[in-house]
This record gives sequence, C-alpha cells and structure tokens, in this order.
Amino acid sequence: MSGDTRHHVVIVGGGFGGLWATRALASAAVRITLIDRRNHHLFQPLLYQVATAGLSAPDIAAPLRHILRDQRNVEVRLGEVEAIDARARTVRLADGGSLAYDTLLLASGATHAYFGHDDWAEDAPGLKTLDDALHIRRRVLLAFERAEACTDPDERAAWLDFAVVGGGPTGVELAGTLAEIARHTLRHEFRNIDPAHARVRLLEAGPRVLSSFPEALSAKAQRQLERLGVEVVTGRPVGAIDARGYTLGDPADAANATVVPARTVLWAAGVAASPLGALLDAPRDRAGRVRVQADLSVPGHPEIFVAGDLASVQQDGKPVPGVAPAAKQMGAHVAAAIRARLAGKPVPAFRYRDFGNLATIGRMAAVVDVRGFALSGVLAWWFWLAAHVFFLIGFRNRLIVLINWAWAYWSYQRHARIIFGVDRAPDATVDSDAR
Amino acid sequence: MSGDTRHHVVIVGGGFGGLWATRALASAAVRITLIDRRNHHLFQPLLYQVATAGLSAPDIAAPLRHILRDQRNVEVRLGEVEAIDARARTVRLADGGSLAYDTLLLASGATHAYFGHDDWAEDAPGLKTLDDALHIRRRVLLAFERAEACTDPDERAAWLDFAVVGGGPTGVELAGTLAEIARHTLRHEFRNIDPAHARVRLLEAGPRVLSSFPEALSAKAQRQLERLGVEVVTGRPVGAIDARGYTLGDPADAANATVVPARTVLWAAGVAASPLGALLDAPRDRAGRVRVQADLSVPGHPEIFVAGDLASVQQDGKPVPGVAPAAKQMGAHVAAAIRARLAGKPVPAFRYRDFGNLATIGRMAAVVDVRGFALSGVLAWWFWLAAHVFFLIGFRNRLIVLINWAWAYWSYQRHARIIFGVDRAPDATVDSDAR
Repeated sequence: MSGDTRHHVVIVGGGFGGLWATRALASAAVRITLIDRRNHHLFQPLLYQVATAGLSAPDIAAPLRHILRDQRNVEVRLGEVEAIDARARTVRLADGGSLAYDTLLLASGATHAYFGHDDWAEDAPGLKTLDDALHIRRRVLLAFERAEACTDPDERAAWLDFAVVGGGPTGVELAGTLAEIARHTLRHEFRNIDPAHARVRLLEAGPRVLSSFPEALSAKAQRQLERLGVEVVTGRPVGAIDARGYTLGDPADAANATVVPARTVLWAAGVAASPLGALLDAPRDRAGRVRVQADLSVPGHPEIFVAGDLASVQQDGKPVPGVAPAAKQMGAHVAAAIRARLAGKPVPAFRYRDFGNLATIGRMAAVVDVRGFALSGVLAWWFWLAAHVFFLIGFRNRLIVLINWAWAYWSYQRHARIIFGVDRAPDATVDSDAR
Repeated sequence: MSGDTRHHVVIVGGGFGGLWATRALASAAVRITLIDRRNHHLFQPLLYQVATAGLSAPDIAAPLRHILRDQRNVEVRLGEVEAIDARARTVRLADGGSLAYDTLLLASGATHAYFGHDDWAEDAPGLKTLDDALHIRRRVLLAFERAEACTDPDERAAWLDFAVVGGGPTGVELAGTLAEIARHTLRHEFRNIDPAHARVRLLEAGPRVLSSFPEALSAKAQRQLERLGVEVVTGRPVGAIDARGYTLGDPADAANATVVPARTVLWAAGVAASPLGALLDAPRDRAGRVRVQADLSVPGHPEIFVAGDLASVQQDGKPVPGVAPAAKQMGAHVAAAIRARLAGKPVPAFRYRDFGNLATIGRMAAVVDVRGFALSGVLAWWFWLAAHVFFLIGFRNRLIVLINWAWAYWSYQRHARIIFGVDRAPDATVDSDAR
C-alpha cells in the first residue's frame, strides 16, 4: 500500500463498533486497516450459549477477513495494539509493526472487571471471549463429573452448588441455562448423583435483577428464573470468593456473613473498558471509558474517535448503555463523521436511538421492553430468538444456529457438551492464558 | 453399586472398541464401568475436518454419558488409568479411585509416535485428539496471518510453505484439504499475499502414498492430489524437523540432503499403541500393541481382553489393520466372549471381516477398494461421504455435518476458521498439556 495517498483510517477492534464503521466506509475514498487481536468477529449476545454448550464456537463467530473479503479498501491485520502516538499519528503493534493513520477509531470494547478483587478471577471466571466461554463450559461439565466420582457427601454437594454473581442480562442468561442443564439436559445420564439436585443461585447485590428494565419486568424475570429452578438472592453483596466457595456479606462481620461451599462460581457482575483507552491522553470515567465529545471524537484530537463499550457518552442526562445496538450506531456515526469531514461538511453530533431492551432467561422465558411496551414469557422468548438469529452474521450461521436451537428445544439436549482444552481440575488455577 | 453381585466388566476407553463392546453388553447380566480420560466418543475418521476448519469439534464428538444414558447397566467414569493389578484384579485411577473388576477390557487406542524423534513433536504436531485438531487449526490459520503481516520475502515464503509428513490416509486427507484451503477458501481474503501461492507438500518415505491400497489406486490418489495442488514427494525420508523447517534425507550427508524452510509441518507418519498396554504383563509388538490370543484375551489372563488399535492381531499371516471397523468388530467380539463365558460356553476366536478400504483426498476426490473392486474420483468421494456420515453417531450430528458439507461444497467455505485457545505463535512451544 506504499504510495497510496488515500486518507488512511485505522480501526482498532472488530466488534460491533469497529466492524459497523468499516462496512459503512465501503464506498468512501479512504483505505482502512482493521486491527484485532483475534481473527474473528464475535456475536457476543449469544456467547452464553457457547459457555453452556448449546452452540459451538464457530456458530457465533466469523473470520473478519471473510466478512470483509469483498470490501477492497480494507486490510485486516491480526495484532495487538501496544502504544498510540497521537502527535506522530502512529499506532505501534506488539509484533513490532507500526501504522501511520490519518484518522483513528478505537473500538476495543470492554472486559470483565472484579472491582479491586482481581484475586477472584481464578475462582470466578467471567465471560467476554470465546476462550472464556470454553473455559466456563469445561468448568461446569467437569463439576458434574467430579460430583459423580466423589464419595464424600459434603464434597459432592459443593460440586453440585453453582453460583452466578451479577443479576444483569448475562448473569440471568447463565443462571437460567445452568438450571435447565441440571434439571433437563443431564437427566438420566448419571448413576451416583441426580443432577436435578444441583443448586443454582443468582447473586445480585442490588435490590433486583435486570435493573436496566422496568421494575415490573424485573419481578417477572425473577419469577421465571425461580420457575426454572434458580434461587435468586438479592440485596446481599458477595464479600469473598475462593476455590472452596463464596461469602455473602462482609467476611469481617462473621455474625452476618454466610459462607457457602460452592465449587463453581461464575462472574457476570461487572465490566471495565478495554485497557487501550488508557493509551490515549484523554479523560476517562470510573470504568475506564473514554469521555468523548458529542461527535464521538477525543477532546483536542478531532482525528481520533472512540466507539462502542469503550466510549462514555451521555445523552439526555443518561449514559448510553453498553449494548450491541449502541456500538453499531456509534460505528456507523464515526463512518459518517469521516465522510463529512473529507467532504468539508460539518460533523453532526451522535444521537443514540433506543430500540428497546431484551433479555433471555432460559427455555421459553425472556423479557422485552420496547419503548415502554413490555412483554415477558414465551412470546418475549420468540421475539428475542428472532431478533438474535436475524442479526447473526452470515446465512450459514443463522441456519445452523436455528437448527441447533430447534434440536435443543425438542430434545432438551445441548450438542456441544464436549470437554476439550486444557483439562485442569476446576479447583486448580484458572486458564490465565485464555484471556 | 456396593452389594451389587453382578459380574463387573471394566472397560477402559470410549473409542470404537470400548463403546461397541459396551453397547453389545446392554442386555447381559453384567454391570459395566466405562472409563475414559475424555468425556466424549470421538468420530476419529473426520478429525482432519476439525483440524482444517470444515467442522466444529462438537460435530464429530458426543458425550459418552449421553450416548449411554438409557443403558442402565453402565456407569461412565471420567478418569485416567494409572495402574492395573492383574492379580488383585483392580484398576487404579489417577484421582485416587480404585475399581475391582471381574473382566477387564483395555481399548485405549493409539497415539501418534515420532519413532525416537520426540523432539520433533513441538514443531510437527500430530492428529489424534480434538485438542490436537484445534492446535493444528490454530497453527495453519496463524501461518497465513503471519505471512500477510510479514515484509521479508523469504520469511513470507516460509510461512506459506506447508508440509505433511506421512502418506497414509490421514496425511493424504490433510494435504488435500490444506491445498483446497489455500487455493479456494482463502481466496480474495488477503491483501499482501496470494494464498494460492502457498506450497503444500506431502512427504512419504516409502515408494508410494496410501501403501495399504492396490498400486493402481495409489497412483490415482497421487494424481488427484497433484490436481488439487499438492506436491507429492516419495522415497525420501525426513531426516530433521525444527521450528524453521525440515530436512529431506540425512542431515549428516549434507550433499544429498535438502533443507526446506517451512513454518508449518504436520505429522501423520506413525502411530504407537496407548501407553496403557505397558501396564499389563503381556508380550507386545514393536509399536507397543499387546499380542493377544485368538479370542483377544491376554496370555495367562483369560479375564483381560484388549481390543482396537491397542491389540496386535494376526489373521491369515497379515496384521488386522488399525481402522475403525476392526476396532468395532473386536469390541463386539469381546462382548460375545464375555456372554459366552458367563453362559459356560466356549469362547470363539476373533475373525476380522474386511469390508474394504476408503480414503478421501479432497474436494470430490477419494479412492475406494472394496474386496478388490476399485473406485476413484468423484464417485468414490460420494461413497466415502455417505459411509462416513452414515456412521456418525446421533441423528443431529449427521444432519449438521451434512449441512456443513453441503455449505462447504457450494461455497468453498469452511465455517470453523476461528482461532481460539492459547494464542501462541506457531513457532513457539507446542501445547503439551493438550495431549
């Protein structure tokens, strides 16, 4: 590409923000380099299905190169960004490569956060990448295997005790699906244990699950979870997590703290912005998100944009939520801003259009809140399924995912219950390489 | 199960031998414990498709528990056998557990072998397990990524140089599919390299590929490979392999040795029996297989049987081949032998029925040798496809695999081109945990 004098847009991150920006620049007179640490775009809203063995990893991921093969103004680069020199307008990669940009878009998303308790990461894995999902799948399936092989009743009970920390959409999905696995999927498969006796608890420090939904829908979600067999514990923060279990309440206040032996604790309680935000000399909020201007550019650097979960945007006094539709809209806005600037036109402000809020709970249970119109139960679940499968990239994926779903629905089976990867005991150290 | 006085059959290994024996004992008055290190039965004949991103891991694997859920006389145990005490009739597991048996069946299969060159394992991974397949998939996909990001032409050429060592069925399948990926699948996806310029060489030390087939079919297979873009090199053994490439011929004889820089070398040259065979006090052949008696029992121990790739069986002066149909027949024979003995009847000798030999080469190319009836090309490929999909366990898997194949056929695409797992550089150490 040497000698190419077109405006060079470097986009970091092939998630919803980065990929939507890339596609919206297809016919612009720019050349684009899209950098990602991974070779695939991931449909994160269905990641919990990979973690719970309902879908295979390739069902919800597609190679970025393949998605963009016909967009000739894009070069996809597998690599990790290590430094940004905003004065020289260059990005340095971990493999030693360096790229000069005219416009930079940072859209590297978010990671899970333990709020000062990084030592919990080992015993309470979170869910952000395919590797995270496969790690959780291994842990959950191995827990039932350990319980089956175990002769001590307390030990066995601890292997059959599952907790999900965090009552947001991911926590609700994970807990609901774990209960379905224990009650239905694994039925008749064990000889020494009854998987239906497994306890699945959803731990939410706040007063209700799905706090971003109206209160009535939170209550309905809780009832649907309970019907699936999940115990919902609200109003008590988790004070400690280790390899043996967790403590509800402050462990220092032993009289009011409850220690629960549980070998499988999953973390769905918090996200922090990608560490790449710190490479910019720009103001950030508590979660590490970059406080961008109204047009999504960084203060003092109109040639640097931030989109998706890494951007902190306020609208009508409320933060724009870290959801896929917001990231897509931001990506498309940045593309429009670049086009406007190249045409010498003024750059408009970003405006988030909220099409509603969906969360699935488990088999035939979901809640939907679309512009004040509330739906729950079976109908909400069909709505959720249609919306998600529709937005999956690629015809093949959609078809396969639908077949897998139909199969899972009729048979209660989850076809991806295959343990592979490093076969460590779930009580051993967590797979730190996998992040 | 304490107090259960039924004859206890312990079966080690849930591959074709162990699983077929287990199922054939469904209505026998025995209780069975099936032990496997992994939680799944693997359809190994299609493993190369996972390695080359055509299928997902769960497409060709099913949880043993699930397959056997309705067979009430079986208990499935995830575990690794560490010792066998043939006098006390007990098996000890790595997790400390111990099992007493009345009859033992060892069917732990084979692993790949480097014939005294274990140091090659790092740079030339073999293909026996799902983890092996995912490791190879990562290496192959990353090689193209490195070539794309590379600026040095020699380095780039080495990343685009692929070699498969061993011209047996696995080597032929891998080489044919690699050529298809380079020439078709990755077309138009890169900007700095043309994947079609990748070199794929199949290295066979003997005089011809597929030496277990008639000579005319070997020649046809070679021609089909060459048409797909594979260079077939016969008659020269590989003398050295390291991270930079390999040497054809004896490296000590520099005048006649050829050093080839190639970053991706795959090993399909040899198998050795599972190390569990050494736990028995029984004669073994050079590959470590246990030399069993005519009824597949171990000399001096009529209560211990060996089946599948771990068994060395001669028939009409020829060894019974290490293929899936032979393992299934041996498993079924051992079940019949156990039934006969419990009924006080004489145990018959095992007799292998050879239904023929199939090998696939690549897109629409295969060779078939059924009782002297030879077939090659498109028709052989359809025959191969039908036979393999038919034998896949589980209706769902068959359907999904067929859809994936149809999709791959029409679109030349391979949907599972997703890199996950430990994202190491292909020139770094191999994933030793994954074996």
